[in-house]
Amino acid sequence: MNVTNHQFRLAARPVGMPKRSDWDYTEEAVREPSDGELLVKVLYISLDPAMRGWMNEGKSYIPPVGIGEVMRAGAVGRVLASKDATYAVGDHVYGTFGVQEYAVAKARSASKVDPRIAPLPVYLDTLGMPGMTAYFGLLDVGQPKAGEAVVVSGAAGAVGTVVGQIAKIEGCHVVGIAGGAEKCRYVVDDLGFDAAIDYKREDVKEALRKLCPRGVDVYFDNVGGDVLDAVLTQLARGARIVICGAISQYNNTDGVRGPKNYLSLLVNRASMKGMVVFDYAERYGDAAREMAGWMAAGRLKSREHIVEGLETFPDTLLKLFKGENIGKLVLKVAEV
Amino acid sequence: MNVTNHQFRLAARPVGMPKRSDWDYTEEAVREPSDGELLVKVLYISLDPAMRGWMNEGKSYIPPVGIGEVMRAGAVGRVLASKDATYAVGDHVYGTFGVQEYAVAKARSASKVDPRIAPLPVYLDTLGMPGMTAYFGLLDVGQPKAGEAVVVSGAAGAVGTVVGQIAKIEGCHVVGIAGGAEKCRYVVDDLGFDAAIDYKREDVKEALRKLCPRGVDVYFDNVGGDVLDAVLTQLARGARIVICGAISQYNNTDGVRGPKNYLSLLVNRASMKGMVVFDYAERYGDAAREMAGWMAAGRLKSREHIVEGLETFPDTLLKLFKGENIGKLVLKVAEV
Repeated sequence: MNVTNHQFRLAARPVGMPKRSDWDYTEEAVREPSDGELLVKVLYISLDPAMRGWMNEGKSYIPPVGIGEVMRAGAVGRVLASKDATYAVGDHVYGTFGVQEYAVAKARSASKVDPRIAPLPVYLDTLGMPGMTAYFGLLDVGQPKAGEAVVVSGAAGAVGTVVGQIAKIEGCHVVGIAGGAEKCRYVVDDLGFDAAIDYKREDVKEALRKLCPRGVDVYFDNVGGDVLDAVLTQLARGARIVICGAISQYNNTDGVRGPKNYLSLLVNRASMKGMVVFDYAERYGDAAREMAGWMAAGRLKSREHIVEGLETFPDTLLKLFKGENIGKLVLKVAEV
Repeated sequence: MNVTNHQFRLAARPVGMPKRSDWDYTEEAVREPSDGELLVKVLYISLDPAMRGWMNEGKSYIPPVGIGEVMRAGAVGRVLASKDATYAVGDHVYGTFGVQEYAVAKARSASKVDPRIAPLPVYLDTLGMPGMTAYFGLLDVGQPKAGEAVVVSGAAGAVGTVVGQIAKIEGCHVVGIAGGAEKCRYVVDDLGFDAAIDYKREDVKEALRKLCPRGVDVYFDNVGGDVLDAVLTQLARGARIVICGAISQYNNTDGVRGPKNYLSLLVNRASMKGMVVFDYAERYGDAAREMAGWMAAGRLKSREHIVEGLETFPDTLLKLFKGENIGKLVLKVAEV
C-alpha cells in the first residue's frame, strides 16, 4: 500500500481537563486488510463527551481505551480495500474507526451509510449515535406525553437538539437549557423549542418556575451538576429524569458531585434512570428511518460544527467541555 | 369533660438534630368533640424518621408542621366519646392524633384497629405505615424477582425489617445493612435475612461485592449518604433503587449530600425512584390482610421498641437518628 497513517494514541490518563500530552501523535504504515476486514479512509470523526469517560481507568459500560491504543471514536469513511463480500471499494461506512487517518476494521463492525440520503457528517449526528441516543432516551426512557413539559440540558448540543425537536413532534412544551445567548436563540428560533434558559446568566430554578409552572414532567440530562440540582427542585409529580450524561462533571479533579436535591424524587414520586444507546442497536434502523422522514419533512434539523484537521484533535475535543460548539462537533480529516 | 391534655407543640424549626427546646410542652383542657368528630385517648404514638422532615419549612409531600401546632404523629388510641355513627366508645382507632394525650379528630380521618388480631403497637409497625411503606415500596417500586439480590439499609428498623422479610418470601437473596452487631444478628438470626453488613465496622462496598457477586438488583434505601454511594458501585444491570428515605442526611446542617456515584445509574441502565406510602391508601387493606396472613403463619415477624412516657418524646425521638432502636420505635402514652 505504501500509505502512511497518522493517529492519536492515548499516552496518559488525564487528570481533569485532557491536555495535548495525554495523547501521542504517531505515524505508521497502513497494513493490508485480512479476510473479513476493510481498509477505510477516515473522512469525519465524531467528537463526543463520552470520549472523556473512555479515557478513565475502571469499569464502565464499555472498557476504557488502553494506554498506547488509538483513541476510540466513531467515524465515517470510504472503503479503500475490502476483504468482505458485502463491501465494495468506494462504499461509505460508519464504524468505530478511531482518531486516525486510516483504519483497518472488521467488516461486520461497520455499517454502510448513503451520502445521497444525507451528508456524511449527519451520520455522526442525527442519523448516528447522538440521534439514536436522543430518540431512545427520550421516547423509551422519558416516555413524554403530549402536553407535558420536557426540559433538556446541553440543549444546543448534538443530543439535546434532537431531544427537543422530537419532543416538539410529540406535542410537548419544550424548554432547552444551554450556555449563552447564541445557543438559546438557536434552539428557539431555528429549532422551534418553546423557550430556552441561559444557565450562565439566568437562575435556572426561577426560570423553570415561570416556564414550566406545573412542573417538569421529563428532564433529559446531559450535564449533571448545578443544572440537574436546579431541575430537581421543579419536578412535577411522577416526573422522569433520563440520565444520559454529565458533561459538567467529567473533568472534575475531586470526583463527581452528586445531585443534592435527589430527595425530590421521593417528594414527587419521580424516577431517574440511566441509558446507554448501545442497548437499542437492534432498533437503530427503524429509528433512523423515522428520523430521516422527519428530516425530509423539515421537522428535524441537523447542524454540524465541523473543524478541519486531524492534528487539531486535542484542542477541538475541548470545545465540548468549554461549551464552544453549537450542534454536533465533528472533526474533518479528509474530503473524499 | 374536665380532662387535662398535655402535648408537644412545635416551638422552633430545628437546626441539625432536634433538641428539647424545639418543642413546647403545653397543657390545656380537652374540648368536646363536634359532629363527625371523636375524642380519642392516645395510647401509643409512632416515632418515625419522617417526622424530622415535617419540622422543616418548605414544600414536601405534606405541609410542614406549623409553629405552635401539636407535633404531627400517627398513633393508636381508644375512643372516649364519639359524634360519628361508625365509631363507638371503646373502639380502638388509628389516626394522625399527634404527640399528645388526647386528640379530638375527624372520624373520617381515623380507622378502626382490632387488638384481637394484633397487639396495638403492631398497627404502628407492620400493619401500619412502616409495613405499608415496605410492602408497596418493595413490591410495586422495586419489583423484585425470585433469585434476585435485594439489599435494604436501615435493615433493623421498622421499614427495613419488613422489606427484608417480604423479599425472602418472594424468594430473593436478601442482605441487610445496619449499624452494630446486635442489629445484624437480629435480622439474620431472628428474621431470616441471608446476610447482614455492619456499616459501622465493615467496608460496605467490599462486603456487597462478596455477598452479591452478580450485583445488587433491588436496593431499598432508607439512609442515603455513604451507604447509598457504596451500593451504587455494586449495581447489577437494570437495578432498581427505591428511595424511601435518607435518615443519615436529615439532620445535616449543611444540606443533603447527593449520591456522587449516581452515574452508575447510566453505566448499569439502572433506576432510582421515589415513593410516598400515601399514594397506596386504597390498597392498604389488601396489603394488611396479606401481611397479617404472613404474620399468622410465622413468616413475618414484628418487633416494637417501646419507650414509656409522653414527656420523654424529644429524647426518645432522637433514638431513631442515633440508631438506638431495633424494630419499630413506639412511644407508650397510656395503658388503656
